[in-house]
Amino acid sequence: MNIGILGGGQLGRMMALAGYPLGYRFRCFDPSPEAVAGHVMPLTVGSFQDLDALASFADGLDLLTYEFENVPLWAAEFLSTRVNLYPSPLALAMSQDRVEEKTFFQSMNIPTAPFAAIGSREEYDAALLKIGLPAVLKTCRLGYDGKGQFVLRTRDDIEAAWAKLNGVPLILEGFVQFDREVSIIAVRSTLGETAFYPLVQNVHHEGILQQSRVPTASTTQELQQLAQDYALKTLEALEYAGVLAIEFFQQGNTLIVNEMAPRVHNSGHWSIEGAITSQFANHVRAISSLPLGSTEVTKHIGMINILGTIPEREFVLNQDASLVQTYLHLYGKKPLPGRKLGHVTFVADDAPSLEAEMDSYVNRMRE
Amino acid sequence: MNIGILGGGQLGRMMALAGYPLGYRFRCFDPSPEAVAGHVMPLTVGSFQDLDALASFADGLDLLTYEFENVPLWAAEFLSTRVNLYPSPLALAMSQDRVEEKTFFQSMNIPTAPFAAIGSREEYDAALLKIGLPAVLKTCRLGYDGKGQFVLRTRDDIEAAWAKLNGVPLILEGFVQFDREVSIIAVRSTLGETAFYPLVQNVHHEGILQQSRVPTASTTQELQQLAQDYALKTLEALEYAGVLAIEFFQQGNTLIVNEMAPRVHNSGHWSIEGAITSQFANHVRAISSLPLGSTEVTKHIGMINILGTIPEREFVLNQDASLVQTYLHLYGKKPLPGRKLGHVTFVADDAPSLEAEMDSYVNRMRE
Repeated sequence: MNIGILGGGQLGRMMALAGYPLGYRFRCFDPSPEAVAGHVMPLTVGSFQDLDALASFADGLDLLTYEFENVPLWAAEFLSTRVNLYPSPLALAMSQDRVEEKTFFQSMNIPTAPFAAIGSREEYDAALLKIGLPAVLKTCRLGYDGKGQFVLRTRDDIEAAWAKLNGVPLILEGFVQFDREVSIIAVRSTLGETAFYPLVQNVHHEGILQQSRVPTASTTQELQQLAQDYALKTLEALEYAGVLAIEFFQQGNTLIVNEMAPRVHNSGHWSIEGAITSQFANHVRAISSLPLGSTEVTKHIGMINILGTIPEREFVLNQDASLVQTYLHLYGKKPLPGRKLGHVTFVADDAPSLEAEMDSYVNRMRE
Repeated sequence: MNIGILGGGQLGRMMALAGYPLGYRFRCFDPSPEAVAGHVMPLTVGSFQDLDALASFADGLDLLTYEFENVPLWAAEFLSTRVNLYPSPLALAMSQDRVEEKTFFQSMNIPTAPFAAIGSREEYDAALLKIGLPAVLKTCRLGYDGKGQFVLRTRDDIEAAWAKLNGVPLILEGFVQFDREVSIIAVRSTLGETAFYPLVQNVHHEGILQQSRVPTASTTQELQQLAQDYALKTLEALEYAGVLAIEFFQQGNTLIVNEMAPRVHNSGHWSIEGAITSQFANHVRAISSLPLGSTEVTKHIGMINILGTIPEREFVLNQDASLVQTYLHLYGKKPLPGRKLGHVTFVADDAPSLEAEMDSYVNRMRE
């Protein structure tokens, strides 16, 4: 089976590494010749605007998937007439526009932050009155990792954010006070089988994921069930195939959707070593109509992103002093400030050992 | 770091899949354009006799390794003057000639089967007198997976085997009665660090590995220590870097070397899911001067080779009825009778569950 991946970043790279043991072949399409998925599979360099390049990439593929939700919708729709594309373009459409996405969740009675769509200065002023401060002004489309958004706390912020962002469709979202941020990694196969990983607790800094932990004592059975119910509704409404990630703000026993990603997700990277079947392996199984693998987690797992600079491999891998297992994942990218270059997974028998090891790692990294 | 692999089979393929998370890049060299490692890394098709092709392959590499011990020695030696090659050509030399290999083990007081080198009919007759029947006549070089060898039990066998094999250097080995076949997967880094996996119990049929199990109740601490002592002596004598496999016949508390392989080994494939660090990851760490990872095994692991025909993926992956985890590895090869096409790894909490699941798999495969 030949599987094509739209996008050539680390997500596509890890997807192929998980799919090769099934005997599948992969290739990827990306505008950049530096795309790191190209280290582990043939890379076609081309623009997502170039129909001929896309058509020739799709030629001979049995399946197509994406690792990047900003593939132009019309390109996805064009390709899906030629080869089975999972997740469907509908999921892509929903996730590409923050207003559509929030409206979609509200239509399923899944809580979101209060929000307002903004196309003019008048709508901005009206939205500010309706939602109040603090709030977050975001572009409706093409934002990720904290890009294209501003937190508004003061009058000055209101004007500064408007000056930066106006000119494209915007959304104003009420600022959600939360106890913690969690995400669920869910998967549904083309055959309709579903599976859910335990809720992941995430820590962000400046919009970029820093750390994930799973499982956590604060996740009650009820909370897990609530997240699964929301994810299941979403999967079914979108007739979804593949891995879907939904990020939530938790307030007490309430989960408020922040956003969804119709793809494998950074907050699921821990599953490579931490779950019986990784999110990447399950994504490949799901889109190729295979039975899903177990999402069970039997240890205490942590993940820390490697951002901006690559630590010495020796430094991460030297486990002499620890009973906690440490796994290094580097994506083969050139270091740039703030860039996601890799991640480290920690596998421990108990939560205190995990915390001690993650603390120690963070402290050593600061030195 | 750019790592080149001589040979493009499944061993090189799994090596690269384990090495990519370290951020390394791989390419491989193989005479066949069909070489399956070429699905996951750039493949240079060329002859091991072609110095120019080898030199151009090595150009720009930081490290070179092999996944195939029949790389011509002079090619390995030529390449090792251009780029660091691990394991060293010395290990290759020892493993390419059965007489040299056995002589080497005996020089370290490590038991082998009785043997005699044969270059003529007179030497054959003398060897038969010395060693007696049953015995095994083998080519000194280029045999693998039971190829190039005959078991001699009767007078007729003596003549038939001679007719088939004479013309190249041969070895006659005394037939070793054994309680079981075991192997040790050992690893030594360029920094001299060593690690050993638990002894693996293997079942062969017609010279081809069928099943491996680890750990086993029959492996006492003393036996494990004995195997490690033998492996350590071998690693140090060869100033070895990388993974080394040694296959033994076990007779009571005695281990008799059958053969060694200076590479990752089929009887170590279970380690991908069964050990904290796989043989492939540890091989890459060892040759790139990184700390070795833990070889600890905390579950009961079994491996069954997929030979000749590929089962339906659904059939292997459907785990509904079982608490034992099943992992499928297909190598992307075209099916041919007897060909190693993949393997299945079973991970269980206890030995009886493992046996039940492996039995059930074998029975279902027969249907």
